[in-house]
Amino acid sequence: MKTLLLKKEEVSRLISMKEVIGTVEEAYRAFSSGQVAQPPYIGIHLPNGGEIDFKLGYFTGNEIISMKASSGALPDNPRLYGVPSGMGTVLLFDARNCFLICVMDGSLLTGLRTGACGAVSAKVLARKNARTVTSIGTGNQARMQIRAMTEVMKIEQIHAWDHHPETLAKYKADIEAEFDIPVIMAGSAKDAVEQADILITTTRGKGSLVDASWVKPGTHIVAIGTDMKGKQEFDPEIFRNAKIVNDSIAQCIDKGETFHPLNRGIITRDDIHAEIGEILLGKKPGRENDEEITIFDSTGMAIQDNTTANKIYQNAIENKVGTFFEFIA
Amino acid sequence: MKTLLLKKEEVSRLISMKEVIGTVEEAYRAFSSGQVAQPPYIGIHLPNGGEIDFKLGYFTGNEIISMKASSGALPDNPRLYGVPSGMGTVLLFDARNCFLICVMDGSLLTGLRTGACGAVSAKVLARKNARTVTSIGTGNQARMQIRAMTEVMKIEQIHAWDHHPETLAKYKADIEAEFDIPVIMAGSAKDAVEQADILITTTRGKGSLVDASWVKPGTHIVAIGTDMKGKQEFDPEIFRNAKIVNDSIAQCIDKGETFHPLNRGIITRDDIHAEIGEILLGKKPGRENDEEITIFDSTGMAIQDNTTANKIYQNAIENKVGTFFEFIA
Repeated sequence: MKTLLLKKEEVSRLISMKEVIGTVEEAYRAFSSGQVAQPPYIGIHLPNGGEIDFKLGYFTGNEIISMKASSGALPDNPRLYGVPSGMGTVLLFDARNCFLICVMDGSLLTGLRTGACGAVSAKVLARKNARTVTSIGTGNQARMQIRAMTEVMKIEQIHAWDHHPETLAKYKADIEAEFDIPVIMAGSAKDAVEQADILITTTRGKGSLVDASWVKPGTHIVAIGTDMKGKQEFDPEIFRNAKIVNDSIAQCIDKGETFHPLNRGIITRDDIHAEIGEILLGKKPGRENDEEITIFDSTGMAIQDNTTANKIYQNAIENKVGTFFEFIA
Repeated sequence: MKTLLLKKEEVSRLISMKEVIGTVEEAYRAFSSGQVAQPPYIGIHLPNGGEIDFKLGYFTGNEIISMKASSGALPDNPRLYGVPSGMGTVLLFDARNCFLICVMDGSLLTGLRTGACGAVSAKVLARKNARTVTSIGTGNQARMQIRAMTEVMKIEQIHAWDHHPETLAKYKADIEAEFDIPVIMAGSAKDAVEQADILITTTRGKGSLVDASWVKPGTHIVAIGTDMKGKQEFDPEIFRNAKIVNDSIAQCIDKGETFHPLNRGIITRDDIHAEIGEILLGKKPGRENDEEITIFDSTGMAIQDNTTANKIYQNAIENKVGTFFEFIA
């Protein structure tokens, strides 16, 4: 019995964003069908400010157990050690016998499976005639969101805003080169938000960035940045009359953007419309008219790693990519 | 930057039991010095009765983060899938930058580091003139305990007992062949226990096996079998007047043998004399006379995996064993 080893470079060419949209959708459906075990994740906070987390997911549908180790917040890594500031490793086990079938570099996985979230949500929550995307935050994840969104809709223009003008200018240049979509660099977050059919926030900010009064009716909001306690991107008033959708209600009310309006008493738990998987499964409606404001709050789930890493593994086997290694003779 | 891959066969010849006694002692000292982070472990219970656990440990002394995945309770694995009923995988990360330095087969690790526990405890808790070991339970872990014990004392005879006579006879044959120590197959658990200078229990039983009245003064007890809720090997009355030592008090009162007398009100938490690391560090006394009954309750800690796997890794580097693989170009 052999274990497949996959390098970062191999992983990068083994899966397309279109496929990731499929695997993330599969993950959401699995989660809302009760076919998933995801224990609380465990991690270590390092004395130098870095951290490493271990996320475990089991999906009875594919009989795969995944474990993803992800490190981050180590900005001095390239200078001091010649390694990236954040890295990842994924183990895949055959759940029937717990044999280790694959060890793959996991550096790209989180970016990909998070990138696909917004696109999956847009399929059921954005207006059919949505054409203008606003991006608050212009880093790597902002690019990933656009990359995925172009797979499910035609984007005519992007309004972007960032605290850092150089980052914003670089984003404009990169996006226009990669997708040929015009990017308007907004003078303020307000200017950008007011233009949005779809508003994507990826700032991982520590306070309210987007005011409720700026958001026009019919906007679909993809709230990515807030995935742990202490983070916030929105004026919680936005939630008062919006259709609120979570990836996992348990996670979002604990550490997502949804925590803030709940904590302030602006909404109750009953005001959360659905988990995205329930909508994808047809158990609950998505968008019901062109006026409602929809919010998809994504905190990220281990099962997204599971279905996405499994697809990478399956593609590797199919295309004979990777190196086999015999840990047990 | 390259990652070292180590196969099961390589691991088996990269470390001696004598070295494991050293690494387990190092782990206990580290734990009782506050140099260790060990988050609660996470696991998946499979529909077929199997399970897989993930244990994470960080030791600031060696700047290594270890993650051990261990599966078990899959007895049909050899027949159905041609793989062992239990397997393991260990990841080692450089804690300064979280780079994955090693992936090793972890099948042997738990057995080794658990095997060394009894010997480490005997150094500070057994009588200096102890010569007779009693083994209740005669499986793999019972053999490991003897293997380690012979490194720290001279065993003149072993009294052994097992529910299964064939298992007992096999144990006698194996131990006598490997160590040239006479093994007396006892007619009852009582007969065996009454002979003990050191009493080792490795049955993973589900109820009290050893009666308090059988244990003679001066005995050192190594309680290995009880490492999760629902397991028990001893009449809890044994704890009433014994010197009680735990690997981790937090773990032992939750799921070790120490849970049972606490639960029955036979002892209070204050009756627990020490963690073994405190004794090894000289913060608390070990055995103080030849009459006291000492109990070492071992539930197993991730940090034992950490120090032991790190020693295996260091030995591999030193002896140029293993295969390097570049996950990140």
